Amino acid sequence: MIGAGQLARMTHQAAIALGQSLRVLAVDRDDPAAQVTPDVVLGSHTDPAALRRAAAGATVVTFDHEHVPGDLLAELAAGGVNLAPPPQALRHAQDKLVMRRRLADLGAPMPRYLAVDDRAGLDAVAGFAERVGGATVVKAARGGYDGRGVAMADDPAAARDLAAGYLDGGIPALIEERVAMRRELAALVARSPFGQGAAWPVVETVQRDGICVQVIAPAPDLRDEQAQQAQQLALRLATELEVVGVLAVELFETADGALLVNELAMRPHNSGHWTMDGAATSQFEQHLRAVLDYPLGDTDPVVPLTVMANVLGADQPPAMTLDERVHHLFARMPDARVHLYGKSERPGRKIGHVNLLGDDRVDSAMLRERATLAAHWLAHGQWPDGWDAHAGGRPGSRSEEKEPQP
Amino acid sequence: MIGAGQLARMTHQAAIALGQSLRVLAVDRDDPAAQVTPDVVLGSHTDPAALRRAAAGATVVTFDHEHVPGDLLAELAAGGVNLAPPPQALRHAQDKLVMRRRLADLGAPMPRYLAVDDRAGLDAVAGFAERVGGATVVKAARGGYDGRGVAMADDPAAARDLAAGYLDGGIPALIEERVAMRRELAALVARSPFGQGAAWPVVETVQRDGICVQVIAPAPDLRDEQAQQAQQLALRLATELEVVGVLAVELFETADGALLVNELAMRPHNSGHWTMDGAATSQFEQHLRAVLDYPLGDTDPVVPLTVMANVLGADQPPAMTLDERVHHLFARMPDARVHLYGKSERPGRKIGHVNLLGDDRVDSAMLRERATLAAHWLAHGQWPDGWDAHAGGRPGSRSEEKEPQP
Repeated sequence: MIGAGQLARMTHQAAIALGQSLRVLAVDRDDPAAQVTPDVVLGSHTDPAALRRAAAGATVVTFDHEHVPGDLLAELAAGGVNLAPPPQALRHAQDKLVMRRRLADLGAPMPRYLAVDDRAGLDAVAGFAERVGGATVVKAARGGYDGRGVAMADDPAAARDLAAGYLDGGIPALIEERVAMRRELAALVARSPFGQGAAWPVVETVQRDGICVQVIAPAPDLRDEQAQQAQQLALRLATELEVVGVLAVELFETADGALLVNELAMRPHNSGHWTMDGAATSQFEQHLRAVLDYPLGDTDPVVPLTVMANVLGADQPPAMTLDERVHHLFARMPDARVHLYGKSERPGRKIGHVNLLGDDRVDSAMLRERATLAAHWLAHGQWPDGWDAHAGGRPGSRSEEKEPQP
Repeated sequence: MIGAGQLARMTHQAAIALGQSLRVLAVDRDDPAAQVTPDVVLGSHTDPAALRRAAAGATVVTFDHEHVPGDLLAELAAGGVNLAPPPQALRHAQDKLVMRRRLADLGAPMPRYLAVDDRAGLDAVAGFAERVGGATVVKAARGGYDGRGVAMADDPAAARDLAAGYLDGGIPALIEERVAMRRELAALVARSPFGQGAAWPVVETVQRDGICVQVIAPAPDLRDEQAQQAQQLALRLATELEVVGVLAVELFETADGALLVNELAMRPHNSGHWTMDGAATSQFEQHLRAVLDYPLGDTDPVVPLTVMANVLGADQPPAMTLDERVHHLFARMPDARVHLYGKSERPGRKIGHVNLLGDDRVDSAMLRERATLAAHWLAHGQWPDGWDAHAGGRPGSRSEEKEPQP
């Protein structure tokens, strides 16, 4: 696996069960996956020699990010390396402009967009922005993640300035309409080289500042035909783009219930972390099964509701060590499934996640609140401002404090 | 962790999620856990220097087997090493005679037994055997596992000969009555140094030739008071024996419903492998939480029924590679949760296990049969003799072939 972040770390856990050996290409011995697997090649994913060392003797080479340059992927493929997903698929997750153009060809539903390949393209920005209502989203075609390379523009002039900035950095831009959305969803599927596809239930993803903070699986109150539409779209894209492995299709649900493709990722994805505890087959095992061309695993949920919350590094260093915070959380929530990444803490950095499982009787709002509280506690070592931990004896109690009904 | 077998391998998977680093003392680089973790100390668990190297700098030292000699444990403890379970607890899992005597002191229910500490003790064997009905079980006090060091004697003379054989090898023996049992059960609990205890549902364990082949969780048709009695007994033993970590209490259920203690193990145990997929907290995570003195996790099952089947090496080398067998199994049973240990195949050797989860609607006999078939297939690359895989389209179909009811 190229890259040794948390996705590679969790893929290693799945590889152990399958009796497979996962080698990782790590920048540093302290990378999340390099801490936990013995087969580590040190080097950069932009260094052809390091990539060749990592690929030497491997059955298949896969990725925990999209940042390997296309020319190096082509070189590996030309050298006989089995890349999964293959470069012709991966480029749609590497370049948003390539992705938008291909999706347009395929007639996939998506926000209206304007490609700004070069400075001449800037002249069309004002007209496009006005046509779609003024407010737009401006994206760098390449290199962004977790909200980086994505900016909000409230008027046409701001959109033009942002796009010009990306062009100055040598990166094409695209301007997208600001969709009036109800919420964000994600459709996660896997596809094997043989062509088998498997779809997990569609989830709701909750973002804050462009970063996913919570995932609710399955998405509450999603109509069956919407869920099927999302799954079928994701499976169709996996086939058309020749994806091998996990494909995450991030979606907007508009105010009138339409589903529009926002982003694609071709690897295990934050929107699928719930599957580690909540589904018959985790996305990490499924990714391995897909890239190794095993038959895919059952994607059914094991419980009616799973909520995942990301642990995001606090702005201020917590007074307690992470170990102490884990200790207190376990005392408070014995059912929290904690997944830590072995990362040092920095503001906003994803250092772990928590899954909570709910049965038929669980109050979904309470499960969501408990997940938020668990992740907040692990990040901060204190409950959120204004939340009274003693009010009801255990986290989530606020939901129980409704006024008695007459 | 002293030892690098499959228990250490699966403990490493749990350590990754907790952000902990598991070092293993391995005899060989190819040991199941040494294959998958970077922190490996090579050496024998009977070599004081190797034990010290493994313990150096560790927060806590725990075990994947019971074979570290007591004097070496005492030496480590005297050197300030934090051993979990501590030597005074572990000796009850190392020496069946020590265990039986302590259980007798505690008034725990168990089969009648006779200690044969030396040759003089042999004189009492015939009388004991006749008192308990003739047929006995003869055990070496130390060094046995998976049915080794345990022999059946059908008459007093055979019992005497077997005990004499153990004594000749320098190991005390004990003779136990052959209990008229309905089935075997196991009560799995964990205890932390703080003194917190947690019990999983009591399971039924199915043995063949002294080796566990299947575990059904929870044990079918166990009366609530029996389950509570077993859990309370196991929690009480954990406290009395000062166990830290997981304690497995293997039990006989007699024909009249009494529960008798058969064996103790103080580590993650085969009877708890179902918890990896079927319980809120796996025994491997719980063992780590206990030895690290974290609050213990929720032991509730996540589904109504989980069946675990061990994959035991075939007598004849299978025609297919293990990889091919996994491939076919996944095609046939997408819901099978496969856990492989990275071990070479030898007749009867545990090389992996399969968990199958069932919901409220599942037929328990069918789930058991499917688990048996899955494990058999992985071991042999063929279905069991006489089983017709095509009869009903998928494994387990035999259960559906009942005659139509009038």
